[in-house]
Amino acid sequence: MKKEALTINGKTLQSRFFLGTGRYPNPFVQNEAIKASGAEVLTFALRRVNLEAPMEDSILQHLHGEAFHYLPNTSGASTAEEAIRIARLAKASGLSDWIKIEISASEKTLLPDPIETLKATEVLVSEGFTVLPYTSDDPILCKRLEEAGAHAVMPGAAPIGTGLGILNEYNLGLIVEDAKVPIIVDAGLGTASDVTRAMELGVDGILMNTPVAKAKDPVKMAMSMRLAIEAGELAYEAGRMAKKPYASASSPTSY
Amino acid sequence: MKKEALTINGKTLQSRFFLGTGRYPNPFVQNEAIKASGAEVLTFALRRVNLEAPMEDSILQHLHGEAFHYLPNTSGASTAEEAIRIARLAKASGLSDWIKIEISASEKTLLPDPIETLKATEVLVSEGFTVLPYTSDDPILCKRLEEAGAHAVMPGAAPIGTGLGILNEYNLGLIVEDAKVPIIVDAGLGTASDVTRAMELGVDGILMNTPVAKAKDPVKMAMSMRLAIEAGELAYEAGRMAKKPYASASSPTSY
Amino acid sequence: MKKEALTINGKTLQSRFFLGTGRYPNPFVQNEAIKASGAEVLTFALRRVNLEAPMEDSILQHLHGEAFHYLPNTSGASTAEEAIRIARLAKASGLSDWIKIEISASEKTLLPDPIETLKATEVLVSEGFTVLPYTSDDPILCKRLEEAGAHAVMPGAAPIGTGLGILNEYNLGLIVEDAKVPIIVDAGLGTASDVTRAMELGVDGILMNTPVAKAKDPVKMAMSMRLAIEAGELAYEAGRMAKKPYASASSPTSY
Amino acid sequence: MKKEALTINGKTLQSRFFLGTGRYPNPFVQNEAIKASGAEVLTFALRRVNLEAPMEDSILQHLHGEAFHYLPNTSGASTAEEAIRIARLAKASGLSDWIKIEISASEKTLLPDPIETLKATEVLVSEGFTVLPYTSDDPILCKRLEEAGAHAVMPGAAPIGTGLGILNEYNLGLIVEDAKVPIIVDAGLGTASDVTRAMELGVDGILMNTPVAKAKDPVKMAMSMRLAIEAGELAYEAGRMAKKPYASASSPTSY
Repeated sequence: MKKEALTINGKTLQSRFFLGTGRYPNPFVQNEAIKASGAEVLTFALRRVNLEAPMEDSILQHLHGEAFHYLPNTSGASTAEEAIRIARLAKASGLSDWIKIEISASEKTLLPDPIETLKATEVLVSEGFTVLPYTSDDPILCKRLEEAGAHAVMPGAAPIGTGLGILNEYNLGLIVEDAKVPIIVDAGLGTASDVTRAMELGVDGILMNTPVAKAKDPVKMAMSMRLAIEAGELAYEAGRMAKKPYASASSPTSY
Repeated sequence: MKKEALTINGKTLQSRFFLGTGRYPNPFVQNEAIKASGAEVLTFALRRVNLEAPMEDSILQHLHGEAFHYLPNTSGASTAEEAIRIARLAKASGLSDWIKIEISASEKTLLPDPIETLKATEVLVSEGFTVLPYTSDDPILCKRLEEAGAHAVMPGAAPIGTGLGILNEYNLGLIVEDAKVPIIVDAGLGTASDVTRAMELGVDGILMNTPVAKAKDPVKMAMSMRLAIEAGELAYEAGRMAKKPYASASSPTSY
Repeated sequence: MKKEALTINGKTLQSRFFLGTGRYPNPFVQNEAIKASGAEVLTFALRRVNLEAPMEDSILQHLHGEAFHYLPNTSGASTAEEAIRIARLAKASGLSDWIKIEISASEKTLLPDPIETLKATEVLVSEGFTVLPYTSDDPILCKRLEEAGAHAVMPGAAPIGTGLGILNEYNLGLIVEDAKVPIIVDAGLGTASDVTRAMELGVDGILMNTPVAKAKDPVKMAMSMRLAIEAGELAYEAGRMAKKPYASASSPTSY
Repeated sequence: MKKEALTINGKTLQSRFFLGTGRYPNPFVQNEAIKASGAEVLTFALRRVNLEAPMEDSILQHLHGEAFHYLPNTSGASTAEEAIRIARLAKASGLSDWIKIEISASEKTLLPDPIETLKATEVLVSEGFTVLPYTSDDPILCKRLEEAGAHAVMPGAAPIGTGLGILNEYNLGLIVEDAKVPIIVDAGLGTASDVTRAMELGVDGILMNTPVAKAKDPVKMAMSMRLAIEAGELAYEAGRMAKKPYASASSPTSY
């Protein structure tokens, strides 16, 4: 059940937007887009960070001093073992004890491996991490991740970087309906209406990177996405009108 | 081609939201929703207005003194002749020389009659009205209305009051692509993501009534719709990423 | 209301498939595809036929002697006047008094002109033709064509030659629901599932050309389309199960 | 890669239709529908069969003597252990060493449990069964099941008994693209066009029960589904035309 504010493992967030830091044309545009987005949580690949001196890293130094919350991810891992090792390094470096588990078994699609993702979730939860696994939209798998202690569950709308939008609204609705932890849509969205629609289905937040970074104007798109999240959240709360087959009809449509 | 600001027959509007004034739970909610929407143009059925004293009318008196622009409509008319007569009465009463032509041939669907709508457009344009016809999404008919002098063309997304959303994105995109006057989506939208999507397709504005008035919380929904229009407009301007079939692919998807 | 057999102006047809004769790789493939389709009505552009000796025409001579019924069309016409002239020539040549009215105002889309199509329908009906107008899927326009005496009405699923499938299932369903003459889907379909779906919506027949002629294997695709029409017709008659949101649910889904 | 004939673990099947035996109005309609379907493989729940005398069972006795191939399923199982036990009983009774693994963790949706399904597949493959697991449409999970030795993989189009059709065409297409064993769509289809579409996506077969059994006329719907499978298979083989945005365009649509 969605709460008024989004709280993950005790941390309350003012923004429902989780923004990735990769693939921008340049660091200036990256920073302007991050500001325009209003995002409070930033996500990035740990393999791209120098963990011996994370705050001097080229990705993170531009953001230093700001009040961002970091959600590093384990992209590049193809097994639970690899993901666990990456997460431990990040924690040891003092960077973050929040971790987005991302374990891809397919170079073609970067789709998450369900078995390895569940394993890594179990281990990292037991080690005290705040764990947010990226997963397929399989409703039972999402429930298994929740039962394994995930602090939020992050089903993909479509494969990473495709921009195809929400491929299966039904599954997303079902996941939300049965969830006891926050559901964050992660990956596959393409444009603002996808975001508004996801929020209308009742998800708690949106994680994206490519749709902002690869828009013709990333800063303007970041502003769009911010408003799209708010519009969708308000529509969800406001309760939409029923669909009807005709102007004159009083019962829902079966078309 | 969409311009930075929406201008209809020389009048530049700050908001792209045209809001209907009917079907709200009560006048207080109506007024709060109108305020929350940021709408500058209000639309209402002339047959519901006392044209002998329009400013004392129960619909309009609450709005008196505000800087709203009125777009009365001819709903209830089933022929060009009836619509023309109603429009002339409205002009004579001093209410407005803007007119939304709405001529329905079917009580079941309230869908617009293409032939009568075109006739009424020709006549009212020649009489100096600012004419905005409500029409089907037939791209050729929309072009004929433009050629007849319509100052904006208003295709329906779906039948009035159904909330079914955009039934034919292709047609809407084609209408926008070929238009030389503003295209306002009128009728059939249901929720915020429909609005964001319509704006992403390049339309110039949104006219709606039921989705706001019949939401569980009309004021909150009005706020949602306002943001949804802005989000869609920004996304249109920002230029979305290309769709791809896989993370690794560089060419657009054929799925 | 659909009848067991398809009857147009007194002529009962055994097949619900109307096949176009253009764009095949060669005449042999054309003939094999026509045979495989089981189509009884063939359609072709009159402007491509030598009306002084139609039976020696390169398009038609291959089909001579077979029991096909001809439905010539007026493609190339951009006004009612032109279409009427073409139809009269065809009748005078003894080729056919059935006519598919096709009046395109746009070279880009070949979409039908609603006003000119209605005019031509009125005139050709009054002259004793069996008139089948190609039209947009505007439900009111389809009703006007029926009222003007059209013997069947032929809404497009999508623009000619695009293969985009049924862009607006709602409109097609509405047209069928209110029709008193046969509804034939004409133009825009792409593959077999589009055809099956159209038949499930209750249409009386399918007219197509490009999806067969431009398939990699036109003869095999003609067989596919024939079966797809039968499958859709049987499903329509058999009455599909209700949709439900869950296995355990007894009421229809609202997703 | 799809082969001309469907072969599962060495057994070549003439029909691509796998039909369930439950939920028919009565045994007579059941038998007529089975005949009309042309199905060669019949599936049923083992928990509904008297395994001490399977051929006298009320479900199976009507079919005795026919050349059907049995694919019993483990529905009712909620763990791998339960499914394995049921499968062993079926084998011991001489009924079949083919088994459809069906392990549901949710009474509401009957969606399959990914972890338990994978476990049961590994065990039953090692025991010499011909194993066909019912699974979600998670492409990586389907690949894992193949790697575990499944002889065919059976992703659901939508939850069992819902008739919602193919909720995620993209995933189904991806599963087919990468598969080395036959892909059978199992569950969630509703009507003939769903079946035609699934076959066009390249799947090897269709398993269904409710859409036939709960149609108003199950026998006619069985005929429809049989033709729909053939139509979709032929369209897949024939190779559909490319989609284009306009009649005049030569490049694929981006709408």
